Amino acid sequence: MTEFTTSLAAFAAGPVTTSQQARIVTSLSVLDWIAVGRAGADEPVSQAVRDLILGEGGAEQAHLFGGGAAPLRGTALVNGTVSHALDYDDTHFAHIGHPSVAILPAALALSEWDDRILVDFLEAALVGMEVSIRVGLWLGRDHYQAGFHQTATSGAFGAAVAAGRVLKFDVDQMRKVLGLTATRAAGLKAQFGTMGKPYNAGLAASAGVEAALLVAGGFEPNADALEGQYGFAATHKGIADSAAALEGLGEEWLFESVSHKFHACCHGLHAALEAARDLDIAEPEVAEITVNTHPRWMSVCNQMSPTTGLGAKFSYRTVIAMQALGYDTALPGSYSEKTCADPRLKSLRDRISVEADETLSETQAHLTLLRRDGARPEATHDLLAPMTLSDREDRVRGKAAKLIGAEDADAIWSMLRTGGRARDLSKMLAG
Amino acid sequence: MTEFTTSLAAFAAGPVTTSQQARIVTSLSVLDWIAVGRAGADEPVSQAVRDLILGEGGAEQAHLFGGGAAPLRGTALVNGTVSHALDYDDTHFAHIGHPSVAILPAALALSEWDDRILVDFLEAALVGMEVSIRVGLWLGRDHYQAGFHQTATSGAFGAAVAAGRVLKFDVDQMRKVLGLTATRAAGLKAQFGTMGKPYNAGLAASAGVEAALLVAGGFEPNADALEGQYGFAATHKGIADSAAALEGLGEEWLFESVSHKFHACCHGLHAALEAARDLDIAEPEVAEITVNTHPRWMSVCNQMSPTTGLGAKFSYRTVIAMQALGYDTALPGSYSEKTCADPRLKSLRDRISVEADETLSETQAHLTLLRRDGARPEATHDLLAPMTLSDREDRVRGKAAKLIGAEDADAIWSMLRTGGRARDLSKMLAG
Repeated sequence: MTEFTTSLAAFAAGPVTTSQQARIVTSLSVLDWIAVGRAGADEPVSQAVRDLILGEGGAEQAHLFGGGAAPLRGTALVNGTVSHALDYDDTHFAHIGHPSVAILPAALALSEWDDRILVDFLEAALVGMEVSIRVGLWLGRDHYQAGFHQTATSGAFGAAVAAGRVLKFDVDQMRKVLGLTATRAAGLKAQFGTMGKPYNAGLAASAGVEAALLVAGGFEPNADALEGQYGFAATHKGIADSAAALEGLGEEWLFESVSHKFHACCHGLHAALEAARDLDIAEPEVAEITVNTHPRWMSVCNQMSPTTGLGAKFSYRTVIAMQALGYDTALPGSYSEKTCADPRLKSLRDRISVEADETLSETQAHLTLLRRDGARPEATHDLLAPMTLSDREDRVRGKAAKLIGAEDADAIWSMLRTGGRARDLSKMLAG
Repeated sequence: MTEFTTSLAAFAAGPVTTSQQARIVTSLSVLDWIAVGRAGADEPVSQAVRDLILGEGGAEQAHLFGGGAAPLRGTALVNGTVSHALDYDDTHFAHIGHPSVAILPAALALSEWDDRILVDFLEAALVGMEVSIRVGLWLGRDHYQAGFHQTATSGAFGAAVAAGRVLKFDVDQMRKVLGLTATRAAGLKAQFGTMGKPYNAGLAASAGVEAALLVAGGFEPNADALEGQYGFAATHKGIADSAAALEGLGEEWLFESVSHKFHACCHGLHAALEAARDLDIAEPEVAEITVNTHPRWMSVCNQMSPTTGLGAKFSYRTVIAMQALGYDTALPGSYSEKTCADPRLKSLRDRISVEADETLSETQAHLTLLRRDGARPEATHDLLAPMTLSDREDRVRGKAAKLIGAEDADAIWSMLRTGGRARDLSKMLAG
């Protein structure tokens, strides 16, 4: 038997001791996931995948973002794709992936179908997300750099485990579901910038559900296919460092350090926006702004003078100007052709410059503001800087309220914190 | 735009000139596929996947092996898995894969659903199988040796193209379906020897159907994700030799050289069984037999004295003894515990020896029979040796008649040669 698989399976099938931090962050991620999923339900990619699944008909086993219900595999495909459509969901930087969009669709669909209570759903979700992060660390940065979309590859294993935990898998079944997923997990970064990126998240969720249902039905795969000479890591350019990936498993929840996005644009812009927020920049007082950022981002999100909403989402100068002018960068609708054409924005943007800075990490940005009064306040922000739980809750709930309305955001939060049945939460996906 | 993808897409979307050989071999592969699929419909892996899909319900868009009907994606998953359950389907040695089990489920499900005539189905199937072989050659032996199951990986691209051809895709749509499939194609050889192997075939068929339906519905992927620095070949240890893989495309049908299995056991044993057939060996006259085979097979299918049906399928000594004793090696049921326990078989088996021989290729075997009368006839057989179309037809039809009865085998053959609607053929999957 293979060590990494067996360790993950033992963790995933056994009793777990969760931390308060892990439980609250999981609930915040669920609220965040529902909010961004509902906000993305009308995107073209969402419609394409929904049409495919609704066209198949079948048992209404679990609810879909955008309304309706479908069999479990189809539900996972839709909900994974839809919730990643806006690329506004959570990110785990150590694992280089988006855990919620791959794991939550699987965990929630199974929990609704099996009529489980929310506490069970949240625990299965947390265990699945932790497994996806551990598999991501095990595959390592090489796997990602080679071209694999870890959200999809590591995510499939997490989704499989989450689904298996809802189905009360024992260690042996957990080993099997990991081994079976190894022959199905897939997803290329080559799809970035197209509908293929959110689809990759849906694929992961759906692959996990399919593998779990098959194993529950008696399917006998090679349970050791994640590891070994011809296993998933070896074939997919993974480094397979088990010691590092298993460190603290069961005692420490790496998922706790997941990041939530508070701006509906490229993650490379967020540290700068947070620094601007720290400086409380407002247009009338701005003479000039200088943004310092990690050199990597210069080719990713430094469009100088975009004219479209999509372009704005990849432009330091545009988003900083938007924030200074009072546009709400948390709302996807703020990024538009109209915003790009705003004369005030164009004028301010021309006074903003962006510089590569080797001294900053990828999660840091430094802002220098030259005020009209000659003052020159500065701020550095690091997305990995700890945030109090209470600040995080305020901001996630605030974001959700903006996206789906305060009433629904509060109702979902209340359900998550006070308990209830998974199916009641699932009904909130419709919007 | 990428050259290989564009060339394949232009071929797949354009008018094609088929050869008589290619048309007849395609029809024979369809007959063979239906026969082995029906024969495998009750295998445990077939039941597991059928239960999953039938449990989802939904529109009865296409027929399943074993009876019933399901939506297209589910049908492809079931029919791909079921038809590979016995590992008795066709093989293409240049491509190192089983074309029919990945491509035919996709082509037939779409053709039935779209109510196409059989000529259209057969052409889509042939084009899809040719594309899978070309993609297989393009990925190369490195891809297979690294651990990827080409039946599944190359097969997914062939299935996608076959489905797209039924849907009358233009070149641009064919490019898109190839690019989208690149983010979903998967399958590891690590699953060999388990239910995961046939499942890989089902995954390929289903992935192709899903990609084609999404592209038909307006999905916009990166159409170039098969190639390039981060494309499928680069990430999956493919050699990506476009010149070799495209040679003769549209003029020469590599699919013509597909091999059919005439014995329900490991392909490594077939050349020896054919050589025994050439010598017309019958037990009473046998003093000794020596089998010479390529060294590779010694670790694959040289079990000395197996006691189970599965063991018998990987044993030179057992299958040669079975044939000499009049057991029908074409029938899966002939390989059993009872056969292994037959005293006549055990006695004869002890007079058979197997030797590795570097001078033989992987598709060759040499048999030396020492008769009781002292004569010593010898025969060499090569599975790649050309077979007349008429011999091939006799043997495939004979195999099908044994597996599903002469009446159904003849009815299917007649349909394939004289025309009709795809849905009528599809109904024959039920058995």
